[in-house]
Amino acid sequence: MTEQKIIPSEVKVVRLEEEILAANDVVAAENRELLRQKSVYTINLISSPGSGKTTLLVETLKALRGKLRCAVIEGDQQTSNDADRIAQTGVPVVQINTIGNCHLDAPLVQKALAQLPLDEIDLLFIENVGNLVCPAGYDLGEQEKVVVMSVTEGEDKPIKYPLAFHLATVMVLTKVDLLPYLKFDKDLCIEMAHRIHPGLPVIETSSYTKEGLADWVDWLLKKCA
Amino acid sequence: MTEQKIIPSEVKVVRLEEEILAANDVVAAENRELLRQKSVYTINLISSPGSGKTTLLVETLKALRGKLRCAVIEGDQQTSNDADRIAQTGVPVVQINTIGNCHLDAPLVQKALAQLPLDEIDLLFIENVGNLVCPAGYDLGEQEKVVVMSVTEGEDKPIKYPLAFHLATVMVLTKVDLLPYLKFDKDLCIEMAHRIHPGLPVIETSSYTKEGLADWVDWLLKKCA
Repeated sequence: MTEQKIIPSEVKVVRLEEEILAANDVVAAENRELLRQKSVYTINLISSPGSGKTTLLVETLKALRGKLRCAVIEGDQQTSNDADRIAQTGVPVVQINTIGNCHLDAPLVQKALAQLPLDEIDLLFIENVGNLVCPAGYDLGEQEKVVVMSVTEGEDKPIKYPLAFHLATVMVLTKVDLLPYLKFDKDLCIEMAHRIHPGLPVIETSSYTKEGLADWVDWLLKKCA
Repeated sequence: MTEQKIIPSEVKVVRLEEEILAANDVVAAENRELLRQKSVYTINLISSPGSGKTTLLVETLKALRGKLRCAVIEGDQQTSNDADRIAQTGVPVVQINTIGNCHLDAPLVQKALAQLPLDEIDLLFIENVGNLVCPAGYDLGEQEKVVVMSVTEGEDKPIKYPLAFHLATVMVLTKVDLLPYLKFDKDLCIEMAHRIHPGLPVIETSSYTKEGLADWVDWLLKKCA
């Protein structure tokens, strides 16, 4: 057959309304007040599946041993794989399985908080369900949202999934040891993150080479000081 | 301070109910009937953000040029980046921006179908929002769900996000050119996928080296034969 002439086609757009999340926010405020009373600093980690959140967390818990008393709430649709990995570090951990659901919400976290020894915790990590979309919309009562993104995911994730990057107070870029093997423009990625959130600090890390982990741990120590 | 003794802690589990999706399914059935009448074979591509779906799709559309008349519905929270890339191939494309929402649903796809020349289409790809969780729960009226996963995401994604792997009729493993640089056990990953979905065919691809693309294109051609 003859060569087809390519005429770039027109792009049409359909938009949706945002959801209302008021009921969640009431419980999130209760969680926040409880955590404040107990002096527990709480961080909500948000990322795609496979960004390396759990591996980063295991390395972080090791680095913080003897410096801060940590605990973890693990959110996953299924399995306690991640909680099992965390438990090996000796840190208290509660696994939440959301089954069909795609994000943690404040009532689930409230149930998990009831199972943790809050008087003995300085820093609580909530590892959200691997999902760059829905978790960003649900306040859990945390002090900070941290967005984790790996260099294998492509530069444009901040502008395609802007809410997580907008709400985060720091972006942790993982797997930087793979940069030599990727067509990934790190500066462009950071520039895109800054389009959504000007001045967002970016910490570049590798859990394998340990590059940047000290910066991330310093950031956490300063938050809890 | 003295060395801390590590006692692996107990893992506690909290579970949620599944959501009911009946309203979506009514419209999905309408979409399916319309697509059947128009002889449009429809594939719903589901994956994490950054798995390489759009790059795979661009290469697929190039390979199918002159063999099948294709079209694409692009789902993203924000931006028309992906649709713009698809439009460069000359294939009809509709971008759906879901804004706060984390998945396509059947009513959104129904609106998009109304904007496509269905009489002139053999094969329609619906690229879902980058999210391995929620899109799996929503029937859009497609014939097949295809799960796309990159080798950078870790072996356990099939068991952590089982619904997508359970419902898919094929799994496309992308970015296999990166295998030499990763601690990724491909056989273990496939074994985990088969725990969820025994016999699920797996096609290994690289959009950069073109490895495996012919197998994927053959699979599509057989479906549309």
